[in-house]
Amino acid sequence: MPEIILSINAGSSSVKISVFKVSSESISHDPTQLAEATISGLTAPPASLKYKCGNRKSEEKSLDNIKSQEDAFRYILDYLVQDEKLSEMKQKEDIHFTCHRVVHGGGYDKSQVIDKETYEKIEELSDLAPLHNAPALTIVKAVSSLLSHATNIAYFDSSFHYTIPAHIHTYPIDPEVAKKNKLRKYGFHGISYSFITHAVSTHLSKPVSELNMIALHLGSGASACCIKNGKSFDTSMGLTPLAGLPGATRSGSIDPSLMFHFTHSAGKPSRSSSEHMHITQAEEILNKNSGWKALTGTTDFGVISNNAGTDEDKDGTYQLALDLFVDRILNYIGPYFVKLNGKVDALVFAGGIGERGAKLRTAVVEGVRCLGFELDESSNDKPGDDVVVDISKSGARFKTLVCQTDEQLEMARAVVEERHRFEKK
Amino acid sequence: MPEIILSINAGSSSVKISVFKVSSESISHDPTQLAEATISGLTAPPASLKYKCGNRKSEEKSLDNIKSQEDAFRYILDYLVQDEKLSEMKQKEDIHFTCHRVVHGGGYDKSQVIDKETYEKIEELSDLAPLHNAPALTIVKAVSSLLSHATNIAYFDSSFHYTIPAHIHTYPIDPEVAKKNKLRKYGFHGISYSFITHAVSTHLSKPVSELNMIALHLGSGASACCIKNGKSFDTSMGLTPLAGLPGATRSGSIDPSLMFHFTHSAGKPSRSSSEHMHITQAEEILNKNSGWKALTGTTDFGVISNNAGTDEDKDGTYQLALDLFVDRILNYIGPYFVKLNGKVDALVFAGGIGERGAKLRTAVVEGVRCLGFELDESSNDKPGDDVVVDISKSGARFKTLVCQTDEQLEMARAVVEERHRFEKK
Repeated sequence: MPEIILSINAGSSSVKISVFKVSSESISHDPTQLAEATISGLTAPPASLKYKCGNRKSEEKSLDNIKSQEDAFRYILDYLVQDEKLSEMKQKEDIHFTCHRVVHGGGYDKSQVIDKETYEKIEELSDLAPLHNAPALTIVKAVSSLLSHATNIAYFDSSFHYTIPAHIHTYPIDPEVAKKNKLRKYGFHGISYSFITHAVSTHLSKPVSELNMIALHLGSGASACCIKNGKSFDTSMGLTPLAGLPGATRSGSIDPSLMFHFTHSAGKPSRSSSEHMHITQAEEILNKNSGWKALTGTTDFGVISNNAGTDEDKDGTYQLALDLFVDRILNYIGPYFVKLNGKVDALVFAGGIGERGAKLRTAVVEGVRCLGFELDESSNDKPGDDVVVDISKSGARFKTLVCQTDEQLEMARAVVEERHRFEKK
Repeated sequence: MPEIILSINAGSSSVKISVFKVSSESISHDPTQLAEATISGLTAPPASLKYKCGNRKSEEKSLDNIKSQEDAFRYILDYLVQDEKLSEMKQKEDIHFTCHRVVHGGGYDKSQVIDKETYEKIEELSDLAPLHNAPALTIVKAVSSLLSHATNIAYFDSSFHYTIPAHIHTYPIDPEVAKKNKLRKYGFHGISYSFITHAVSTHLSKPVSELNMIALHLGSGASACCIKNGKSFDTSMGLTPLAGLPGATRSGSIDPSLMFHFTHSAGKPSRSSSEHMHITQAEEILNKNSGWKALTGTTDFGVISNNAGTDEDKDGTYQLALDLFVDRILNYIGPYFVKLNGKVDALVFAGGIGERGAKLRTAVVEGVRCLGFELDESSNDKPGDDVVVDISKSGARFKTLVCQTDEQLEMARAVVEERHRFEKK
């Protein structure tokens, strides 16, 4: 009987669950995906379900009364059990492992089996990123009671970056406060960077431990990572996912003083000032009401990219946003190139925008042409469906790749690889 | 009769005044420095005076009752008038021009003669940088009454960066708030970068308008500037001097969320939280109680550099600070290199640390060796006293220079060049 793994990825307005099977005989093989269900629109009801099982795609279905991550998880779980075509999973008890993507893992350098103690620790360290960890924590709690027979494992977006050296992860602030309040660069998107590392290693037939890459995970949240000998050496996000590149609703790095000048009266601090700033309000503004949404009115970078420089772009707003994103991306490729001493196996684009944004890739690679990157325009326009596609111009000094990253698969694969750590005691 | 120019540079705990003469016949020549007086220690009394006139250096003198920038200015003014050796300036009325270095010039793209109207404007825009503009404003006010016969001119550290294009100076935040509250990247150290640009242009015999440089002004405040065709194209400081590189007491860029996690209770924001943050306290912590002082206990980067890796550095704190600074500097050289498309006339070190920090320069240039920079160790160890010294290894692809920057001279020179703008109406 094959074992079933559920890989669960909860965002602020969506829940995505992938079902994998793994035969106990073939642990050297990757888990096979059986089905994938996504409920989105939780913050803009009605929510809707997308579902595919094998090659069979169901029509998108509008859902009433599904308003929270927990609702969505319960709905998908029932849906999966009731799908007769999904013969490997007839009842909840067939599920052996659940994997949860948790954004902020604080000091955890690897995944953790979730029991009462680790749940409390994860909840506690989530003070560092309340906006980012909340969606996963709701589901983790529900799963622990609904699927108590299974081994439930938390995978952290920050763990991959545990290898960043001290002189890069340290902030030049009071070290005692930093220690007490756990203030350092953590970095995120680590599950994706781990997938990218393995996928590019396979593509280039080069061991992970010898792989040097500049990887870009560009989605509604966006980051860059300098991967040296297969390990994270630097990344653009920091204590929280706010630092670094801008995103759909996120400012990315700005002057640390800016927030204190955001409201008019807050723009006039003085030694005698009694002005205050609501912390919640400030973090909400920078995380939820900035980025592409604030600049252009849309959170869809595809719209920005398509309209930039066309008649639709009367006041040049879309072009400004596109140019701004390219500029900020160059701010990371440049230093990561020198931190790898110019020994770069590949510049890798991944994430929704990274995988689909041909125009953005053209502009970014043109920007680093002087370092030795060049695109083949026709492969860039249509990279196809392979996990890793080489879009470099023939003869370019360095490779440029597109990688279809898959955080769910990466977690399921890690379960198989590390199952000895997870055996129930 | 030669004309006398006073160049005034007020910091938070010091005032430096240089006296220049310029003959009306020789306006094509640089002003000649006659004397220089510095009062330092205003925030750690007793203050003390350093003075030199021509080649004659006076002994350092401790001063009682000099506690403010205005006290210091009045003292120096009397001292200069009473110095019989300074024959060109026998009375206050001999002063034709005073130049004031003002940190934040908001939207001003060039220097401004100070009258009631401009003073009020400068005062108003100083809301953006109250910690940084205050010292200069105190003196500007005093000068206007003490030297009302002279033409008093404000030079802004931000003006040089007025040429930074919109996609680089725009923050991805609500554009209406940004416009109303004047939130954009301004950049600072511009008077120094202007000096560096002219000095390197002369050194390389290349017109300013064709000059591409990566310039580093590294002092107790530190920044980097990408100079394209003689103009600022990008710089590391932002809305305020806090952004970018760390400094003696300044954090530089950190996660914009960090400050909200600095105090323990502030580390637990939630939607229902009523936690507040004193704006003044936050800006004070990041500007005055961070950087080298917080990390190592000293504000003197020379101490850090000398002790790093020696027996004095038992817990590796100095080495950490040195490595951290090198890392952060690479974060700007990398992107500026690509923004210049690899067409770089020189990497330039300036400012106290940039001019004296041979060990730091070695580490930084080693870090960008893959781009084509290499040092000649013996010229790096002893660059000598010339305004610009080439410390590159013979045969290196790109030049590395050390420049003794001089903001006072740059202001005086600008007065001569632009005097038609300043004639009293």
